[in-house]
Amino acid sequence: MLKVGVIGTGMIGQDHIRRMTAVLAGVTVTAVTDVDVETAKKVAGGLPGATLHLTGEDLIADPAVDAVLVCSWGPTHEQYVLASIAAGKPVFCEKPLATTQDACLRIVEAEVAAGRRLVQVGYMRRYDAAYRALKRVVDSGRIGVPLMMHCTHRNAGVPSFYEKESAITDTAVHEIDMVRWMFGEEITAAQVLIPRKSRNGGPLQDPLILILELAGGAIVDVEISVNIRYGYDIRGEVVGEDGTAALGEFSPVVVRAAGERSAPIPLDWRERFLLAYDVEIQEWIDSVAGGGEPVGPSAWDGYAAAVVSDAGVAALRSGSRVPVTLAAQPTFYRAPLS
Amino acid sequence: MLKVGVIGTGMIGQDHIRRMTAVLAGVTVTAVTDVDVETAKKVAGGLPGATLHLTGEDLIADPAVDAVLVCSWGPTHEQYVLASIAAGKPVFCEKPLATTQDACLRIVEAEVAAGRRLVQVGYMRRYDAAYRALKRVVDSGRIGVPLMMHCTHRNAGVPSFYEKESAITDTAVHEIDMVRWMFGEEITAAQVLIPRKSRNGGPLQDPLILILELAGGAIVDVEISVNIRYGYDIRGEVVGEDGTAALGEFSPVVVRAAGERSAPIPLDWRERFLLAYDVEIQEWIDSVAGGGEPVGPSAWDGYAAAVVSDAGVAALRSGSRVPVTLAAQPTFYRAPLS
Amino acid sequence: MLKVGVIGTGMIGQDHIRRMTAVLAGVTVTAVTDVDVETAKKVAGGLPGATLHLTGEDLIADPAVDAVLVCSWGPTHEQYVLASIAAGKPVFCEKPLATTQDACLRIVEAEVAAGRRLVQVGYMRRYDAAYRALKRVVDSGRIGVPLMMHCTHRNAGVPSFYEKESAITDTAVHEIDMVRWMFGEEITAAQVLIPRKSRNGGPLQDPLILILELAGGAIVDVEISVNIRYGYDIRGEVVGEDGTAALGEFSPVVVRAAGERSAPIPLDWRERFLLAYDVEIQEWIDSVAGGGEPVGPSAWDGYAAAVVSDAGVAALRSGSRVPVTLAAQPTFYRAPLS
Amino acid sequence: MLKVGVIGTGMIGQDHIRRMTAVLAGVTVTAVTDVDVETAKKVAGGLPGATLHLTGEDLIADPAVDAVLVCSWGPTHEQYVLASIAAGKPVFCEKPLATTQDACLRIVEAEVAAGRRLVQVGYMRRYDAAYRALKRVVDSGRIGVPLMMHCTHRNAGVPSFYEKESAITDTAVHEIDMVRWMFGEEITAAQVLIPRKSRNGGPLQDPLILILELAGGAIVDVEISVNIRYGYDIRGEVVGEDGTAALGEFSPVVVRAAGERSAPIPLDWRERFLLAYDVEIQEWIDSVAGGGEPVGPSAWDGYAAAVVSDAGVAALRSGSRVPVTLAAQPTFYRAPLS
Repeated sequence: MLKVGVIGTGMIGQDHIRRMTAVLAGVTVTAVTDVDVETAKKVAGGLPGATLHLTGEDLIADPAVDAVLVCSWGPTHEQYVLASIAAGKPVFCEKPLATTQDACLRIVEAEVAAGRRLVQVGYMRRYDAAYRALKRVVDSGRIGVPLMMHCTHRNAGVPSFYEKESAITDTAVHEIDMVRWMFGEEITAAQVLIPRKSRNGGPLQDPLILILELAGGAIVDVEISVNIRYGYDIRGEVVGEDGTAALGEFSPVVVRAAGERSAPIPLDWRERFLLAYDVEIQEWIDSVAGGGEPVGPSAWDGYAAAVVSDAGVAALRSGSRVPVTLAAQPTFYRAPLS
Repeated sequence: MLKVGVIGTGMIGQDHIRRMTAVLAGVTVTAVTDVDVETAKKVAGGLPGATLHLTGEDLIADPAVDAVLVCSWGPTHEQYVLASIAAGKPVFCEKPLATTQDACLRIVEAEVAAGRRLVQVGYMRRYDAAYRALKRVVDSGRIGVPLMMHCTHRNAGVPSFYEKESAITDTAVHEIDMVRWMFGEEITAAQVLIPRKSRNGGPLQDPLILILELAGGAIVDVEISVNIRYGYDIRGEVVGEDGTAALGEFSPVVVRAAGERSAPIPLDWRERFLLAYDVEIQEWIDSVAGGGEPVGPSAWDGYAAAVVSDAGVAALRSGSRVPVTLAAQPTFYRAPLS
Repeated sequence: MLKVGVIGTGMIGQDHIRRMTAVLAGVTVTAVTDVDVETAKKVAGGLPGATLHLTGEDLIADPAVDAVLVCSWGPTHEQYVLASIAAGKPVFCEKPLATTQDACLRIVEAEVAAGRRLVQVGYMRRYDAAYRALKRVVDSGRIGVPLMMHCTHRNAGVPSFYEKESAITDTAVHEIDMVRWMFGEEITAAQVLIPRKSRNGGPLQDPLILILELAGGAIVDVEISVNIRYGYDIRGEVVGEDGTAALGEFSPVVVRAAGERSAPIPLDWRERFLLAYDVEIQEWIDSVAGGGEPVGPSAWDGYAAAVVSDAGVAALRSGSRVPVTLAAQPTFYRAPLS
Repeated sequence: MLKVGVIGTGMIGQDHIRRMTAVLAGVTVTAVTDVDVETAKKVAGGLPGATLHLTGEDLIADPAVDAVLVCSWGPTHEQYVLASIAAGKPVFCEKPLATTQDACLRIVEAEVAAGRRLVQVGYMRRYDAAYRALKRVVDSGRIGVPLMMHCTHRNAGVPSFYEKESAITDTAVHEIDMVRWMFGEEITAAQVLIPRKSRNGGPLQDPLILILELAGGAIVDVEISVNIRYGYDIRGEVVGEDGTAALGEFSPVVVRAAGERSAPIPLDWRERFLLAYDVEIQEWIDSVAGGGEPVGPSAWDGYAAAVVSDAGVAALRSGSRVPVTLAAQPTFYRAPLS
């Protein structure tokens, strides 16, 4: 039974606590903390036997905590991840790994210095059954060498705090990680095309088209439409030399009525990726229970996503193609990426 | 943490133990038993803290067992379910509830006498996301009053011990329970149409078409093809007065290659219904933990399925329409059915 | 340029005249007649050079008529078809070939006596691209020997003169002909299952399920729902030993809006089968121009459809399985059927 | 009966002659000519009553020619179209209207001077049922203002004379015209993205992604893959403010076999667009018969396609975004575009 301490008991933290308590096997939440002590107290009250800590550092030091799950505000991620590494405890950090490239690089260096993988970052697309099936087809060679990928990332709407750059840093960052994993290659440049604005987007520049170039020459286009009203629609088609492979369309039920054949589209990411979150956390639990290393997205993946995301933001601001420059990859990370 | 004892550690028992150990939350397997003591011993060996019992009755009596899961050979189901009722412990019994109508009725009577629901039967289609979405559409009235349902139940192949009657008792019995649940009505008659035999079926009469009549007049046709080679294909379309609703097609990935657009079809029931099993057992755990009553398929559902199944077998043998006659339904069961 | 005389200038006759005038190649309408002289006069007025005849017999005798197209009231079909045969002129007769089995048989005998094929009957499904693609797959052996076929024939609504028996004689008769052609076998028995009535059907027994047995043992079920409101929906899946083949779903456009992915369903048979009618008449023109024999549905096909249709009506009335008994097939017709 | 003279009796000319002779109504081919006299003689031999001319100019002058269809080698289009305008005869010119922008502009000016529309250019996508259905949805406002369109233009392979620039001038030019028609706006800039090369493309840069900007700000991306082996695959999705609309997938038949559900993909453009060609030519015949003006793609459309195509080629060569500059549109053409 893996004993997990959760730093950050806001919406996503509470959801992971529900997941570890009511859905997943082999895990128990033994400690919580949050900058908002009242919320943390309420959450701890629903967890018999769990300890309420006043700081993340206290929680990490708690001998009743085997592994740490960081769901706090982005700017605090670096300190808790570094502290977990220092304590030699596995840490699962929700995206982003940290809010700057430099902070991410410090985490990478700390982990390399620690000599073993302790960090996993919360890019959950890699755990989705459809993306996994898509990657299996691509890897099988059935469609030849992959040359392009067409992606759409559509949200029905976004909250009021969503900013111009969020289209890259919060939304397209999922595709940034997914594409690196799907192709097994680094991204080398970004460009942003700016279509006519939707009246639904208010002051935002919505939609956008993000163009990514990969080390092997493949090009990926990502439509980002975050106020498209009709639903949450994630699509992806890899185009190879001899064929293509695309994510399936999900529709538990097909209705024929009133002149149309229709199938429901998910409302939001919770509906679409609920199971991917379950799989992500279960696989993390299974990998680190008993002292193992995590096998999911690494600190390097978190760093690379941050660098590409920065390039995307620069491309959005400048209207030009922006090259991506990564630090040299420590050999330490080579296996997990491939 | 619900403490479950498992009677029967064959294939399905081991799968449920794996599920309760490695997948689901809030449950621990505390006791096992099997007629094959060696197997039971091996299974118990992999479950730290679990007790190996020599008989099901011992296991049921074990104070470390809160609830019982019966996965033993069909002819033994009655005795273990009755013993669990006698002990006042919730019991989840894999289908069939018992091997004869009379045995099922004895269970129903024992449960009514006990004065509270303790029994749940393992009809897992009710836990499948697609069937649930289908039922929600039907219940919403969007397609009008349901008048018909077209079902197909196709297996790539069946094991060598599969007999002529298995097409009804093992295969179509899933549709028998699903249809009663989907329409909220009892089945009143059965007929079997016998098409040309497939060369793939050996001595079996394969395929068959089972025709079911419901209390409200709806008619259901079920194609049963158990050696169709190409995959496991479960489909269903409810036809209402104003429209229809059908199970969606599942395809995580769509490939365009070699002149075709294609999507994979599940190989077998494990692939298609894996999640439904997880949901079924998790919901059972959640309902009975803390002393609650199960809300899934009841002893009455198990009895009704047995009676309709017998009518189906009689119809297969006679070639005629066979009416279904149920005992009077105890008021005790009225709510769960609706 | 084939010179065609049209007997019957009602809705379907006018549609075929439009087709031969404005859509198809190699044909000119040179003569028309109708029991309603005023309508015929109006139609002739729009056809420069066409002769208005007072009787079908006069039209058939007209030397400016190479071939005859019969679209008059069903009870008059026999006399015009027999007169065309007597005149040695190719005749395309809209369904039904005649209103009784005996009348159909008289036509068969007259044609056999004439020694060459002159008659084609208007079963247009054989000219639909989807049915043809389906038959090519079945004939290819890719799905093994065909054992079953599931069909649905759904109309949004039917006109007020539609009677109880029309469900068989006007609606399912399309499937009756199609199935004989698809399997290359005669139908040997019919049965009708009667589900709960739709409130949309008024006094009609709607829907129905027609069960057809074929000479080789295959079984076909046909859902007939003629007031289903949502659209015109023709579906068919042939189930073979190793796989299945089904008519595709037609949707020129797929819309994602308001939480749904949806595609339009045809409103009526005109929309669904417009092209099939064009192909049917063009192929008839091409086959008989220059003195050739028609290659489409024969007088024998018209006779067989009438006999099966009668059995279907008897089955509907009796609730029982009704065997189909055909006269011996003249060798004259063997090739066209296969 | 429209009397058409055909200039150019190569593959496409012969196909249009077959179409006008064996498929369409209201037309007869009365004259042919070709630079290859032997071929023209052979074709004329199969057309009873048709005159063989030695030059296009002779054919245009022939009083037995009401309208002209130009299918000759591209560099000759200008002279025949201008001669037809001079003769006051309607002329249908296969794409391209002419091989240079300047030549196209001379045709535009000649037609404007003639004071009535005589010219139609062979962009047949506008006649495809799916594109028309797509445009109807876009025009209905159901998806809001259109902001983007994603297109794919995939060929299984291309002939050996296909050159680097052909990807724009021969292939994407169909999308260039379609997009102007779909959005009812001119294209204002072009850019070309160059992905990793396919091994199937030999020396060609294949695939490409063409980015088009429209006057109203919408952005269109067009994947051009001309050696993708698996089939001919034309797709398009218009993304609006509130939803999207996409071309349907065409599959006359769906097969379930060998672990897959599959549907055939067209082999080539003939299979995919056969009916669109029929509709295109029939509508042209219907519009110009009796002295009317054509309503299809105009000389202006031909000119605009040429200018955008040139910009696309420049973008391909330079790797940069290339603005499109059109001459001022004569008011003469305003209505047909909208």
